[in-house]
Amino acid sequence: MVDMDTLVSLCKRRGFIFQSSEIYGGLGSAWDYGPLGVELKRNIRNLWWRDIVHLRRDVLGLEAAVLMHPRVWEASGHLERFTDPMVDCRECKRRFRADHLDTQAWLHYCPAKKDNKFEIPAGEACKHCGAHRTLCPVCGKGELTEPRQFNMMLKTFLGPVEDSAAVTYLRPETAQGMFVNFENVLQAMRRKLPFGIAQIGRSFRNEITPGNFIFRTREFEQMELEFFVNPLDTVDGRPADEYWHDHWIETRMAWYQRYGISSQNLRLREHAKEELAHYAKRTVDIEYQFAIGWSELEGIANRTDFDLRRHAEVSGRTLSYFDEERKQHLVPYVIEPAAGVDRTVLAMLTEAYHVEDVRGEKRVVLRFHPEVAPVKIAVLPLLKKREEIVSRCWELRDRLAARGWVTVYDDTAAIGRLYRRQDEVGTPYCVTVDVQTVGDAEKGETGDGRVTIRDRDSMGQIRVPIADLETAFADLLGGAAWAAVAARYPAQAGS
Amino acid sequence: MVDMDTLVSLCKRRGFIFQSSEIYGGLGSAWDYGPLGVELKRNIRNLWWRDIVHLRRDVLGLEAAVLMHPRVWEASGHLERFTDPMVDCRECKRRFRADHLDTQAWLHYCPAKKDNKFEIPAGEACKHCGAHRTLCPVCGKGELTEPRQFNMMLKTFLGPVEDSAAVTYLRPETAQGMFVNFENVLQAMRRKLPFGIAQIGRSFRNEITPGNFIFRTREFEQMELEFFVNPLDTVDGRPADEYWHDHWIETRMAWYQRYGISSQNLRLREHAKEELAHYAKRTVDIEYQFAIGWSELEGIANRTDFDLRRHAEVSGRTLSYFDEERKQHLVPYVIEPAAGVDRTVLAMLTEAYHVEDVRGEKRVVLRFHPEVAPVKIAVLPLLKKREEIVSRCWELRDRLAARGWVTVYDDTAAIGRLYRRQDEVGTPYCVTVDVQTVGDAEKGETGDGRVTIRDRDSMGQIRVPIADLETAFADLLGGAAWAAVAARYPAQAGS
Repeated sequence: MVDMDTLVSLCKRRGFIFQSSEIYGGLGSAWDYGPLGVELKRNIRNLWWRDIVHLRRDVLGLEAAVLMHPRVWEASGHLERFTDPMVDCRECKRRFRADHLDTQAWLHYCPAKKDNKFEIPAGEACKHCGAHRTLCPVCGKGELTEPRQFNMMLKTFLGPVEDSAAVTYLRPETAQGMFVNFENVLQAMRRKLPFGIAQIGRSFRNEITPGNFIFRTREFEQMELEFFVNPLDTVDGRPADEYWHDHWIETRMAWYQRYGISSQNLRLREHAKEELAHYAKRTVDIEYQFAIGWSELEGIANRTDFDLRRHAEVSGRTLSYFDEERKQHLVPYVIEPAAGVDRTVLAMLTEAYHVEDVRGEKRVVLRFHPEVAPVKIAVLPLLKKREEIVSRCWELRDRLAARGWVTVYDDTAAIGRLYRRQDEVGTPYCVTVDVQTVGDAEKGETGDGRVTIRDRDSMGQIRVPIADLETAFADLLGGAAWAAVAARYPAQAGS
Repeated sequence: MVDMDTLVSLCKRRGFIFQSSEIYGGLGSAWDYGPLGVELKRNIRNLWWRDIVHLRRDVLGLEAAVLMHPRVWEASGHLERFTDPMVDCRECKRRFRADHLDTQAWLHYCPAKKDNKFEIPAGEACKHCGAHRTLCPVCGKGELTEPRQFNMMLKTFLGPVEDSAAVTYLRPETAQGMFVNFENVLQAMRRKLPFGIAQIGRSFRNEITPGNFIFRTREFEQMELEFFVNPLDTVDGRPADEYWHDHWIETRMAWYQRYGISSQNLRLREHAKEELAHYAKRTVDIEYQFAIGWSELEGIANRTDFDLRRHAEVSGRTLSYFDEERKQHLVPYVIEPAAGVDRTVLAMLTEAYHVEDVRGEKRVVLRFHPEVAPVKIAVLPLLKKREEIVSRCWELRDRLAARGWVTVYDDTAAIGRLYRRQDEVGTPYCVTVDVQTVGDAEKGETGDGRVTIRDRDSMGQIRVPIADLETAFADLLGGAAWAAVAARYPAQAGS
């Protein structure tokens, strides 16, 4: 599997992801998406939105503000409970998450073995002096303070005066936007249960230990669905909330696989009772085998009626649903599939990365699913000094772009190098215009009007009449196998 | 023209835009986009991105973090200059923008005419006591303090300690993301001048007087392009920066008109010398005739080399471009078309709103351009009690949605009412399934397999074979005139 450093370096070199504010030394674990990264991210967002909102019959979209009323976080429990236990070292003043200390090896300056420092495995004490986890895991000397709770919401001040009345929080999750708008959506859209409200947007958490590239950052983007179900209903003989919870676990697992994540890199992890969030009846994580090991890609929780009930309590408003059949008001249960855009980007990059040996040379290729790939087609001139070739390339680029396929032109290297570059950013197909295509007016030779299409994965090449390009790409980018399309045209040697 | 209150009310009732955190009394001038608003917003974002990034040969995309390194704002001048002059009333403690006072009428409690309060026009003094603008415009009693500068950036604290070292600002504009990544993009993407970097994303400004619905909010979304040009070049005999400035003014004016904004509601406003921002050589605003009067929709500035030069100075990095022909390093000039997503939404809503009299009844219709309309097609059953009709509707909804057109189903009212509702949210076409379509199995009658397509603007109706639906809608939504498509099918009476 590709390691994180290789990915970070590829992402920077090829314009996927840059360190934020890099010219100023970077801002702790913040990242900017470059020209290819933003296309990758847009594709992931758009596929999620298409599959969850547009194609389904039972989901509506929403986009709430990042800044919400402070009482939202009182009702949700975030003000009180969205905390991490922190400890400080009395010597070096470093700060740590108390709940992470037991799982990490620590650096120890042993007083019993002068001038000697060594690493001690997680959970173990020093054999020489007996020191253990109450000492700082970095300097190994200082005592640690008692854990205290540190709230992870970022705060700001709205209005001209910085006082407590002006304190507002940057949302730590998009979910609350759906809960506080539940009544508005219900009234405007006249939906019956079950139905969902979906949102994509940035959230902010003051993580103490962000890191691992875009895996954990203080600013991140979520794709969240709150799916409201009638707790009095049963589906297939099961309580509706349990039925729909399983439905969403299956649907979301299938979604990742549909866009190229292999099943052996995905697994489900059931949260243990004591691990469940205060609002959850059951939570199942979809984990991906990242370079840092199996980690959460998406969490799918049964939030019960906790949120709507709390918001009703704190706001004094009635947030309920009228069950026409039973003639009674009830508070819906909520199933929440909550995915991370950035983590999906990271999973897609990790999964796509391949290194191959091609005739003794290393080929790096990102085998993105065509709908995920940032660029669909690259149009390349075999000779950039031939004006007819270059202008034909641009003309084709414009034509294919107009069809809705992101298409680029590149002439900044020889063709072999250009192919490798497109491989490295995962472009599924290249189109090459050569002398044969355009002919040679001076010699009185007309071209054959055919161009080469090259397949990223097999490196196969075919000669296709320019008039056929749209049809060929509609098939290829629509999911047709390369072999099926290639069979219609003469092959060409090359790679 | 539609007034703001009517728009706000329609937007809430029909699921376009809700007041943020409404159940808690709202958060000052923050708004949430509901199911239809988010589709409208997505369309605007996607059209901008398609036309600016995907279709053009010379623009690349980017998505930077909202949280940037504090030195970015030192370099950009925002820490020092992004301020509004504020005054306080010593009596009632209200706070005002000093530069707005001269243009507003004020409420005066006149000491010379006891217990008497009245309004005094902007710029005038009280005829009785001589009081003028140094008194509070609301209570009319208190003296106003001297103006002091108030920085409009929202701040937050990253990391566990709230001290000055942890202060970070929420970006007040997306533009700086392009400047600090200029070198990264240049290296990764190998572009030659002129080329642009485009970004869509949220920005935050601690406005003292937000308001007018989504026109001025503290959290808002920008669509910004930084177009880098070679200041040594000339185009058509003019300095390149001036040529491209005009190019972008024309391009952006045409863009709004292409998606339905009429030319009489658009105008250009040249910034006066003394009004220019510190970085600008020339700025031209595109103004729209909103309900609140002519106001800025987009600003197009020539930022010169100010930003890249300042970031180079403050960061100590070289931010320049090597001119291959002249064999010299230079700092590019920047032309910046900066549009607001929310203001474009407001302009589109304002422009689309029409009230008509249809046979003595009021019809409210949003005449959105098809590419702007949140929903493209509504599939409606004439009789919701006939199972074959309902299931055929859902089947058609799924089929049309799968073609990429946002399609909804609605059966919560009689057909006339359903049409009016779709008119009011701007859905260009309705498809109605009736008894004629499906026939009546009990009576042994087979249906004719045709459905009604109804046109929002003319209210014309035609009977179209189900097999033709995709072709008909590809034409209609692709820009074909209703009359041209309608001529192919029999008309049907109705509205």
